[in-house]
Amino acid sequence: MDENTGSEGVAGLFAPERVAVVGATESEGSIGRAIVENLRADFAGETVPVNPNYDDVFGLDCYPDVGSIPGEVQLAVVVVPPGIAVEAVAECGEAGIRNVVVITAGFGETGSEGASRERELTAVAEEYGLNLVGPNSLGVMSTPSGMNATFGPDNALPGSISFMSQSGAFITAVLDWANDEGIGFKDVVSLGNKAVMDETDFVEAWADDPDTDVILGYLEGVENGQSFIQSAREATAETPVVMVKSGRTEAGAQAVSSHTGTLAGSEQAYEAGLEQAGVLRVENVQELFDFAQILAGQPLPESDDVAIVTNAGGPGVMTTDAVGDSNLSLASFSEETLEALSASMPEEANIYNPIDAIGDADIDRFERALDLALGDENVGAAVVLSAPTAVIDFDDLAEAITELQADHGKPIAAVLMGGDRTESAKAVLRERGIPNYFDPARAVRSLDALVRYRDIRERDYEDPTEFDVDRERAREILERAEDRGDNRLGVEAMGLLDAYGIPTPEGTIAETPEDAVSAAEGIEGDVVMKIVSPDILHKSDIGGVRVGVPDEEVYDAFEDLVTRARNYQPDATILGVQVQEMVDLDSGTETIIGMNRDPQFGPLLLFGLGGIFVEVLEDTETRVAPVSEREATEMVEGIRSAPLLRGARGREPADREAVVESLQRLSQLVTDFPAILELDVNPLVAGPDGVAAVDVRLTVDTDEL
Amino acid sequence: MDENTGSEGVAGLFAPERVAVVGATESEGSIGRAIVENLRADFAGETVPVNPNYDDVFGLDCYPDVGSIPGEVQLAVVVVPPGIAVEAVAECGEAGIRNVVVITAGFGETGSEGASRERELTAVAEEYGLNLVGPNSLGVMSTPSGMNATFGPDNALPGSISFMSQSGAFITAVLDWANDEGIGFKDVVSLGNKAVMDETDFVEAWADDPDTDVILGYLEGVENGQSFIQSAREATAETPVVMVKSGRTEAGAQAVSSHTGTLAGSEQAYEAGLEQAGVLRVENVQELFDFAQILAGQPLPESDDVAIVTNAGGPGVMTTDAVGDSNLSLASFSEETLEALSASMPEEANIYNPIDAIGDADIDRFERALDLALGDENVGAAVVLSAPTAVIDFDDLAEAITELQADHGKPIAAVLMGGDRTESAKAVLRERGIPNYFDPARAVRSLDALVRYRDIRERDYEDPTEFDVDRERAREILERAEDRGDNRLGVEAMGLLDAYGIPTPEGTIAETPEDAVSAAEGIEGDVVMKIVSPDILHKSDIGGVRVGVPDEEVYDAFEDLVTRARNYQPDATILGVQVQEMVDLDSGTETIIGMNRDPQFGPLLLFGLGGIFVEVLEDTETRVAPVSEREATEMVEGIRSAPLLRGARGREPADREAVVESLQRLSQLVTDFPAILELDVNPLVAGPDGVAAVDVRLTVDTDEL
Repeated sequence: MDENTGSEGVAGLFAPERVAVVGATESEGSIGRAIVENLRADFAGETVPVNPNYDDVFGLDCYPDVGSIPGEVQLAVVVVPPGIAVEAVAECGEAGIRNVVVITAGFGETGSEGASRERELTAVAEEYGLNLVGPNSLGVMSTPSGMNATFGPDNALPGSISFMSQSGAFITAVLDWANDEGIGFKDVVSLGNKAVMDETDFVEAWADDPDTDVILGYLEGVENGQSFIQSAREATAETPVVMVKSGRTEAGAQAVSSHTGTLAGSEQAYEAGLEQAGVLRVENVQELFDFAQILAGQPLPESDDVAIVTNAGGPGVMTTDAVGDSNLSLASFSEETLEALSASMPEEANIYNPIDAIGDADIDRFERALDLALGDENVGAAVVLSAPTAVIDFDDLAEAITELQADHGKPIAAVLMGGDRTESAKAVLRERGIPNYFDPARAVRSLDALVRYRDIRERDYEDPTEFDVDRERAREILERAEDRGDNRLGVEAMGLLDAYGIPTPEGTIAETPEDAVSAAEGIEGDVVMKIVSPDILHKSDIGGVRVGVPDEEVYDAFEDLVTRARNYQPDATILGVQVQEMVDLDSGTETIIGMNRDPQFGPLLLFGLGGIFVEVLEDTETRVAPVSEREATEMVEGIRSAPLLRGARGREPADREAVVESLQRLSQLVTDFPAILELDVNPLVAGPDGVAAVDVRLTVDTDEL
Repeated sequence: MDENTGSEGVAGLFAPERVAVVGATESEGSIGRAIVENLRADFAGETVPVNPNYDDVFGLDCYPDVGSIPGEVQLAVVVVPPGIAVEAVAECGEAGIRNVVVITAGFGETGSEGASRERELTAVAEEYGLNLVGPNSLGVMSTPSGMNATFGPDNALPGSISFMSQSGAFITAVLDWANDEGIGFKDVVSLGNKAVMDETDFVEAWADDPDTDVILGYLEGVENGQSFIQSAREATAETPVVMVKSGRTEAGAQAVSSHTGTLAGSEQAYEAGLEQAGVLRVENVQELFDFAQILAGQPLPESDDVAIVTNAGGPGVMTTDAVGDSNLSLASFSEETLEALSASMPEEANIYNPIDAIGDADIDRFERALDLALGDENVGAAVVLSAPTAVIDFDDLAEAITELQADHGKPIAAVLMGGDRTESAKAVLRERGIPNYFDPARAVRSLDALVRYRDIRERDYEDPTEFDVDRERAREILERAEDRGDNRLGVEAMGLLDAYGIPTPEGTIAETPEDAVSAAEGIEGDVVMKIVSPDILHKSDIGGVRVGVPDEEVYDAFEDLVTRARNYQPDATILGVQVQEMVDLDSGTETIIGMNRDPQFGPLLLFGLGGIFVEVLEDTETRVAPVSEREATEMVEGIRSAPLLRGARGREPADREAVVESLQRLSQLVTDFPAILELDVNPLVAGPDGVAAVDVRLTVDTDEL
């Protein structure tokens, strides 16, 4: 429902001056009471109770309905029972309230009656052009005005992370924890059933919000993959987006569907789609907040090279291993730095990275080492790591770290290793956005998140190339499926590829032996002959393919192929025999390009090498179409077996550019024709000088044509 | 130095009645003072200062040397300067003190003078049969007697985890943190330079210690891989061993070598060796202690099936994903359990796993759900997960969890999500050995560690099969390398494989064209001919291989091959031309079996498929030899491309048993002959009915023969 929202609309949602609570009450233990109390506690604006049963609630004037409230109200929070909730929302619309949060449960999550109630709700929201959050939401918060329009026990601390969650309980848990950790938020929204506003709306809203430095999400599904990708790409040019998308595993996907009724798209599509959207996808809660904190607190590094400064060799080695596991690398210091380190460190110290200032390092030695490391132009970021020793005070070290971070403007993660004695130092570091962990691996992974986001931010999302294609011819070929009343097409649809410029061997479908002979005579050299029937999927298995047929044997081969097919399945529809130019398989590499449609993300392209590589080794790359040239190139270069295409083991390299172009052309084809549900070109033979699509199979939804 | 230690020896190290501190002093800031103070603080036994400069230290009688101490002393801690440390240790030996911890630094870690001092130290320890820890050690601790014979700032809390570390600073950091987390230890030892006692000794000692439930280690290297494997296998039948072996990555290995001077063995060897030893290897500090805590506190599950009980759907889904990522699976409840759950849960609850008791679940509902889940025979373990709600008190929930855990005897991990409000509940849980994490993924990974250890514990370490081989013939063939003055052998050494029962095609090395013809005539069908020269490694590249040569062309082929070799390298030593039976490559799969020697672990076997699979996809399995039949089978079945051997895509399955046997025979060969430094059989062709070793290449250390 993206058209409903705009920055001014969401301003009303998160920064209202007056909030109506529809269903406000003092009744002990009720949600209506909790919301009024939460708003009264910290909200800088006005809280307006609405309930026909009361004249006042907690001393505030209470109105019988929203229509009776004098003056403008920007946000209504609806907590009335499900039976009257839709009407209450309609009254909000009627009264000119543009932002509505529906707390009430008993909608899509509870069976068919609830689902139909949710459809009514959506219709009402559309009628009045409402920004509607929920239903079945915990509510919304926004810390600049202190607004806590939720029924949870805690308000958020102020900060620059804006957080959306498809689970209200997760918000409650996170706030309880974050408040003790000193982690603050700008806005928090419990998405509920997403009847109207969804993740795409909030990504867009927070991308435009100067007070939001990081967008965080817990999602169980994405409503509209294509528009999410578009919005997230725009957002991540300025603001990092970090998300848990749960239901990654088979068991998890099942749990999602019983939790929210969300129809699970394929994990492959989510993986590709979120990556293409520029989202930093994390797998667990710890990473979600580790990444959020450093992204909110530290600058992006200009290079991937990290300096490690420590007073403890062993933990220094562990940190180095963590760097080895990451996208970062260990910085090599310049000669100047090494000389300066050498002059200021004792002989037993290690001045090469990781710098080990050894156990008797005092604050001055530590500070000097870190200053020199950060001052080196080869260093993009630093990890400062200290074991507790008699000569170092963690508070002093924290002060030194924050000062040097500010001086050099390079990101730092700290590993002051210890228990309670680190608490005050941690607070000093946190104040300046520097995270501290006991485990060096967490510190390094956090810095790694900065580098990953920097790369996302620098991405150039070029438009997909538009090739000059014969769309009409493609449509005609697809319509044949409709004429035939069969939604499966095979080699008889090779023209589809040809129409979109994907090279196919010369060939035709002969309906008689005579046609086959004349087709073969028009083709140089021997030919390949294949039975063409929508009812015979595995042509080779029934002897339905003949390779290297000389012209003089084509007549007999035709009859033989048809006989075999008839013997195999007497009632099979036989469209003829394909007579095709021989493709040199020996000098080429068999690849597969394909597509299937995901319910959330739409067309999902697949690339891999033929034979065992896709089927046994599952060595594939997938992307949501349409793909740009860069994305198609990443698919081809990204498979593990890519070295084979580059000419491993003395083979001539395959024409990878031609493969990339074929993928882009396939992308255009499946984007142009939503009627194509599935399509496989297998094999697409990639030789040294171009490609040839030898076989194709597709499924068409003729209603979509 | 395993022969030096026995349980009585280590009892003296960790449970001495009297401890001498050689180098005791009151001098401010000195290590000698810190150790005396630490011992005086908590040690139940007697501390005996030794220093010729004082009559007493902190009011304790001080002796000029250990020889002057009346009565028996079980442990001496040596802190004198490096120049007199070796002598001080010798005096301990002379005085009958069997256990010595050398704190003094300035040995192997500091260059050649130190290294020679360390050799002297080792010699003295051997002379007197000492259990010597260090040098360059932080010291040792043992909580039953309160002994803190280290110079670190904190003593350990009592517990059942025994911990060794190659980094003293890491011990200091861990104790500071663990004391605040309430994590206790039995023994702690700082290994230092491991001049005498190493990780193997402590694995052995703690395996025999009834008060040690978990053995934990931070290692930068293993001194003797083979004896470590042996000892760890025995230990892990009763006691889990969890370790960080750092220097995993290239950068990390470099850092290790500059930190401790440890010669880094290959990461491949460590990976294989530690796995074969039954060690649970972890990659970071967080996992090290997460695993240690649950292994020390919870029983092992009888099945891998986990029940999740929660009041929060979203976090329940995240937990389910974490289960999907692990070796665990989601339990399916029995009909009875489902009926009982259905009867006691509200309609909106989800009674299927994960059980969602929903947000208004009070302690009774939660308890009932957990009780039913744990009572189900399909459930091996449980995760209990709660978001903070108005109706649940975490302390009550913690009580319920610990009681039900005790009643059912099944392991539980808790995820009470929140901040400080979880503290007291956490303490209750910890008391009963139940870990609590904010992140569900950590709880699940901890349970997973229990399952992994259970599987290790159930392992049956069968002995390697001893095949009947012709060892003398093998020796003769290896000695040819010595005769020739060349340590590289090629196809001329095929007899080596034959002597060890690895099938080779019929063949011989002909020195003249006439010999070649007569050899070919003795072989059925056409033959393969290959130039045999230690100077020509890539025979195919110079046209040095001819396949499918009919008998009548053998004479000319011989001359042609020799001419090509001469043209390629005029001074090459040419041993002749191999005339070999043709092997049917089409119906077989090319595999590679090989070996190289690791400095720590010795012979490391490798298995993979030929061609691109090893070289491009790096799809290999490695194991330290000798391997049992189970281990050889795991190698063959463990590669990603194993489905190809099992007959993927309509091929006949390869004779995997013959491959497994060849690996075992190769294992026996390289174990029998340490002189073989490297060996590759490439390819070993695996057909439907057996294997054939087509080519071999090896390097021999003739001094070892």
